[in-house]
Amino acid sequence: MPRICILILVIIRYLNFIQSLSGEIMKKNAFYAQSGGVTSVINATAASVILEAKKYKTKIGKVYAGKNGILGALREDLIDTSKESISAINSLKSTPGGAFGSCRFKLKSFEENKKEYTRLVEVFKAHNIGYFFYNGGNDSADTAFKVSQISKKLGYQINCIAIPKTVDNDLAKTDCCPGFGSAAKYIATSIMEASLDVASMSETSTKVFILEVMGRHAGWMAASSALARNKKNDAPHIILLPEIVFNQKKFLNKVGDIVKNNNYCVIVASEGVKNSKGKFLTESDTKDAFGHSQLGGVAPYLSALISKKLKLKNHWAVSDYLQRSARHISSKTDLLHAQAVGIYAVKYAVRGMNGVMPIIVRSKSKKYSWKIMPASLSQIANVEKKLPNSYISKDGFNVTKKAIEYLQPLIQGEAFPKFKKGIPNVQKLKLIAVKKKLTDWNN
Amino acid sequence: MPRICILILVIIRYLNFIQSLSGEIMKKNAFYAQSGGVTSVINATAASVILEAKKYKTKIGKVYAGKNGILGALREDLIDTSKESISAINSLKSTPGGAFGSCRFKLKSFEENKKEYTRLVEVFKAHNIGYFFYNGGNDSADTAFKVSQISKKLGYQINCIAIPKTVDNDLAKTDCCPGFGSAAKYIATSIMEASLDVASMSETSTKVFILEVMGRHAGWMAASSALARNKKNDAPHIILLPEIVFNQKKFLNKVGDIVKNNNYCVIVASEGVKNSKGKFLTESDTKDAFGHSQLGGVAPYLSALISKKLKLKNHWAVSDYLQRSARHISSKTDLLHAQAVGIYAVKYAVRGMNGVMPIIVRSKSKKYSWKIMPASLSQIANVEKKLPNSYISKDGFNVTKKAIEYLQPLIQGEAFPKFKKGIPNVQKLKLIAVKKKLTDWNN
Repeated sequence: MPRICILILVIIRYLNFIQSLSGEIMKKNAFYAQSGGVTSVINATAASVILEAKKYKTKIGKVYAGKNGILGALREDLIDTSKESISAINSLKSTPGGAFGSCRFKLKSFEENKKEYTRLVEVFKAHNIGYFFYNGGNDSADTAFKVSQISKKLGYQINCIAIPKTVDNDLAKTDCCPGFGSAAKYIATSIMEASLDVASMSETSTKVFILEVMGRHAGWMAASSALARNKKNDAPHIILLPEIVFNQKKFLNKVGDIVKNNNYCVIVASEGVKNSKGKFLTESDTKDAFGHSQLGGVAPYLSALISKKLKLKNHWAVSDYLQRSARHISSKTDLLHAQAVGIYAVKYAVRGMNGVMPIIVRSKSKKYSWKIMPASLSQIANVEKKLPNSYISKDGFNVTKKAIEYLQPLIQGEAFPKFKKGIPNVQKLKLIAVKKKLTDWNN
Repeated sequence: MPRICILILVIIRYLNFIQSLSGEIMKKNAFYAQSGGVTSVINATAASVILEAKKYKTKIGKVYAGKNGILGALREDLIDTSKESISAINSLKSTPGGAFGSCRFKLKSFEENKKEYTRLVEVFKAHNIGYFFYNGGNDSADTAFKVSQISKKLGYQINCIAIPKTVDNDLAKTDCCPGFGSAAKYIATSIMEASLDVASMSETSTKVFILEVMGRHAGWMAASSALARNKKNDAPHIILLPEIVFNQKKFLNKVGDIVKNNNYCVIVASEGVKNSKGKFLTESDTKDAFGHSQLGGVAPYLSALISKKLKLKNHWAVSDYLQRSARHISSKTDLLHAQAVGIYAVKYAVRGMNGVMPIIVRSKSKKYSWKIMPASLSQIANVEKKLPNSYISKDGFNVTKKAIEYLQPLIQGEAFPKFKKGIPNVQKLKLIAVKKKLTDWNN
């Protein structure tokens, strides 16, 4: 081989080496964490982030999951998702709860606690983290928004993307929130089933049934119970929304009327219902066995009220965590949303975006369709989207046709998990910790 | 045609006529009714009774369903099931609740209220009813047992068969009760799902989760939550059974220990748990907003106890009717049981049996198999089968391997209903009333 050829080969080799070196330097690891109350499909989002990230081998290295949300970053408690098999990652699509642990922890502002931010940068540097994905609701969007400002305020380049998730469905900008559709499907199904039970018992036994649902200050979850109806007068007969001040007299009259005409009455009450003084019903005058001001929730409160004032036999249920973890009855549409926001979060990050959230945008066509678009976190953090007035019936005890039209598509389709030994099969992850490089964090 | 042939033809015709006439006279209508708390599969039993009866055209005429249980017979409120399409009857297999209405109504004894029995005979005679099927639990077996004695005591021939049904699983003689397996599957699935939720939140939020389940004085439903476990120390960590006296100190110590070692604790509590004075926990010292002695159930009681004594953040849920109407997560094995007891009830009746119940008998082989056998109602009525000692762990907070082995087969298999618009599709029956022939019943 002539010398000139050898020289060319050496040059090409060298250039390749330089290129791969710069690639390695350019390549950053990603941090993903779950925050706030979990849902039945938040792990499907996690799976999508991890699997999508694998497609950008020149840009994204490993995906480290934060143990217990942002705390995982502060404490350097990182889980190496590359140690999990692809089948284990795929199994997350049918696993409820938060696979990496969640948290209720709000970062203070830069001015109040700069230490938290410098610690984050320290951890990011130590583990070459350049992408930050935070999967949560309002508070979590606030955390992500603050993290997104690190680039500017502390000069550390980070692509921060918040990923929506909340059964409360109260995030601004997005048409709906992943997790909500499944909880809505659980509520609509459960209240339909329980109503058939009550109906058959009402002649000689229970006349009133009350189901308390979550949703905080927004009535989306309570409203979704209306999807249980086949005909106008089907159960639920009364929906108590947090957007409407509770009027005891009007409520009792309504219950009495319904039992008179229909023989039984089914009520869905939001945990966030408040009286005219702006207090939760259970705060007002209930004392528990120990003299505390809050024993139970809205459902037992209403039950006691109906027993006392109307002397009607009643039963009540409180679904609590069951409604937000019921993966066995998840909505397929919701599951698709949860996966899509995970995929787009990664796409946005590798495109260099920062401080955005992939949101679900509904098309204006009659047939339900949707797409994912980015929205600025500044417009989402700490904003709470309540049920609009046009979704609430005039008497305040029901939702409108417009609300039904909005809600209906979100519970469509089933996505049953695989069952083993009679219950949904859940594969546990290995959750292998990334070796710590820093001293412990003392907050 | 020679005269002799004509004569023979006439004689044959006459004999056929006599035969069909006697067939019509022999042929009796059947009465079927549902009683007590309904289940997610009681309508599957109803469908089986109605469809099986059609196979005995020479013996059984129409199947009349009693509106609201035995009250339908007393009030002559009968529903003509022959007016329903076969597809509507088949749809009952996936419809929870009691399609014909149920009741909580106990017949008095012959001696106390003979009037009730003479009225029943009056209605039976008026509608040519010779078969009586009563689908219920303990109390209903008592009603059926009393009705079965009408033949002897009032000389009216009736074949009375009680058909088992109860989520409480507390009927004597039968290996298990239709309805229980599905409720058990709901509980095991729900507590597994909710436990994953609690686990992920436990670092900074909820440490203890309590689910209250039904079951009256027997712990079968609470015990079934143990099926949620994959490994020994998985949730639920504590099961409170009505068979074990509640010891507050031992309970709080146990909760504290579990939270210390495991970071969170999941508790399943039976509604029937009692203290050392034999009183329900909620009866003991809880006052509601109106000074009544019972606001909520066991779950909010335990929640308040844990908050006060252990200062641990906790959440609680009460499934109430949701657990016994959750047809969307019914056990296929349970559904098959529910159908089989309906089929055999009809078989027993046409064989001339009276005062029996088709029970489920488990084979002794390792692989689960079962058959239906008749058992005398005298041994079933008013008997309550509790969890045997051998099924309860030594410390009283758990169940044994033996209990798991008993429970496991009962939740096997899925039998998802068809969904329409995102929720299970329920077909409503026409419920056409049979024309009354008697004066109103004044009890």
